[in-house]
Amino acid sequence: MTPKIASFLDTQPATPCLVLDLDRVAENYAALRRALPAAKIYYAVKANPAAPILDLLAARGSCFDAASLPEIEMCLAAGAPASAISFGNTVKKPSAIAAAHKLGVPLYAFDSIEELEKIAAHAPGAKVYCRIAVNNEGAEWPLSKKFGTTLDRAKVLMLAAPALGLVPHGLSFHVGSQQTGTAAYETAIAEVAMLFTDLKAAGVELKMLNLGGGFPIRYLSDVPEADAFGTAIMDAMVEHFGNDLPEILIEPGRSMVGNAGVVASEVVLVCRRMEADARRWVYLDIGRYGGLAETEGEAIRYRITAGNGQTGPVVLAGPSCDGVDVIYEKTPYHLPLELKSGDRVLIHDTGAYVTTYASQNFNGFAPLQEYYV
Amino acid sequence: MTPKIASFLDTQPATPCLVLDLDRVAENYAALRRALPAAKIYYAVKANPAAPILDLLAARGSCFDAASLPEIEMCLAAGAPASAISFGNTVKKPSAIAAAHKLGVPLYAFDSIEELEKIAAHAPGAKVYCRIAVNNEGAEWPLSKKFGTTLDRAKVLMLAAPALGLVPHGLSFHVGSQQTGTAAYETAIAEVAMLFTDLKAAGVELKMLNLGGGFPIRYLSDVPEADAFGTAIMDAMVEHFGNDLPEILIEPGRSMVGNAGVVASEVVLVCRRMEADARRWVYLDIGRYGGLAETEGEAIRYRITAGNGQTGPVVLAGPSCDGVDVIYEKTPYHLPLELKSGDRVLIHDTGAYVTTYASQNFNGFAPLQEYYV
Repeated sequence: MTPKIASFLDTQPATPCLVLDLDRVAENYAALRRALPAAKIYYAVKANPAAPILDLLAARGSCFDAASLPEIEMCLAAGAPASAISFGNTVKKPSAIAAAHKLGVPLYAFDSIEELEKIAAHAPGAKVYCRIAVNNEGAEWPLSKKFGTTLDRAKVLMLAAPALGLVPHGLSFHVGSQQTGTAAYETAIAEVAMLFTDLKAAGVELKMLNLGGGFPIRYLSDVPEADAFGTAIMDAMVEHFGNDLPEILIEPGRSMVGNAGVVASEVVLVCRRMEADARRWVYLDIGRYGGLAETEGEAIRYRITAGNGQTGPVVLAGPSCDGVDVIYEKTPYHLPLELKSGDRVLIHDTGAYVTTYASQNFNGFAPLQEYYV
Repeated sequence: MTPKIASFLDTQPATPCLVLDLDRVAENYAALRRALPAAKIYYAVKANPAAPILDLLAARGSCFDAASLPEIEMCLAAGAPASAISFGNTVKKPSAIAAAHKLGVPLYAFDSIEELEKIAAHAPGAKVYCRIAVNNEGAEWPLSKKFGTTLDRAKVLMLAAPALGLVPHGLSFHVGSQQTGTAAYETAIAEVAMLFTDLKAAGVELKMLNLGGGFPIRYLSDVPEADAFGTAIMDAMVEHFGNDLPEILIEPGRSMVGNAGVVASEVVLVCRRMEADARRWVYLDIGRYGGLAETEGEAIRYRITAGNGQTGPVVLAGPSCDGVDVIYEKTPYHLPLELKSGDRVLIHDTGAYVTTYASQNFNGFAPLQEYYV
């Protein structure tokens, strides 16, 4: 936790709330730039679209990966030029494509002929890039089941783009979110490099490779630093592309804002409901429907602290009447034996993928407050 | 779909949206009254807290089961007297208990000594009821892991209530949401009846049994009618309580509003992304984070229609860039072979547990619109 966050929390804001240190975002942006100086950074807006974050990144010259028309509009409102925005969702409404095109957004993702035809119809002349499904092994929040196509089919689609009036600009892949190994990038780069070569031989020269996001942050376990990913990626790029490097894009979301934020929560109840309970149940005022959606299946395991003293094992659950609203039951968590209703618990590294997931009104609970300091 | 919903949908409202027929809610309320005339109905507000629904039910004399202070305030705003409200969440902030007590809410749930002590401190003199954990077999959305205590411990807690200045008023259980069998009620009633007897022998005469909710509605498969549950429940009550029946409460949510609503959604993309795909992927403009949270693990399987014509198998997914946002992959769904981007899909029986789950802003998508007709 940064001093700025600690000092804001000293004011005892009502819980649940997210407190995010913007200086940390600036540091993360700088670290990513240093780690991959050859890459253009397209911040994955969906990780946290709060205006102070977008303002800060736009002022530093960041580009933006938008999932929807509203996200594009947020980036423009932050002062980003349309030319710095990529419409990265492979699933877009025709009306959203047309509106983005009118606003001047130049770059569109796709992974099917149907989407390519929609882009051709509603954003004529646009630059397009095809998403390849790659191995997501090592990712704690995998993405490839729902998105991406094969190298063979991508080749057919890229070759079809010019006749549709589109510019076949590049390829993308995504190794999965919170990807804890560098090998997934190396393998994927080797695969797509072959397709660059194939397409060049067929007369289509691609200009761009989008490496997606997925860069991990430290939750409970150490992960490789940004520099390790940068080195692995650039080594693989040089190995497979030689000195004919395409423009490189990366789409960090979690690694840009995750470790900048802390959620403060209040303990609503600590109890043992059954005689046989070895573990106390700790109910917090935030749960799976209050923003901690990535705890589904206990996939993302946040670091949680709550004062000092001797600790014992707990099950953590949210405040709603929903039986599914249990945060951690299998993952061993320990919290102070003295913990009681009214105490404050901190959930660390919650700057990404928390606020926007929060349900609008489940069980009558309003979404968490957000403070950007 | 009711004629009123069909006629509203003919106006082509922007999607995604929920259209809910209030007449159907009134019919469901009447049917539940007929099925269990001996029971007081406490509508589970969390199922859908929209003001038109609460207004309608308050006007008919319904009582209300509230999960939070905001839900209590919604009921009061709808004209319900505080005396008709039960604070049914076993996990409550002290400040919420105190506020509810000040507003005149008489009835509080608990399942631990810690919660009982909180109620004693912040709602002195209140009527309390203890939630028993019962078998949830047969329920498509189980609840008992997170809530309820054992009969033995409940006995200890109820005996402790008077010394804490509380009125030991009754017991409750919940057989799980979308409970498709009547046997779970029969077994649970037999169990709690014994505790009524035990407590009476120990000098505590309970006045109330809260049977919870869980009454199912028809999604893809037939379920027993409300009458069948009513008969099974009353037979069990008479068998185990004789003619010394306690006051009976039920907390229907899904069965009150579920079948009154239809979600209209737009197809964003239909494609086969891989050569080997036997099934088309159909991406809708609503998904797991847009309100269809109960499709997690494909637990609740909604009836989905989309025009006519020959059909083929599909995978259904939401519009976000999140790989987890897949609605149905294992459950076999068939939609027309002609289905394409821009077409409308109807998701039936979505009046309960949809609107409030919707994320406030995930991927930049606003929550679905709601229309009560």
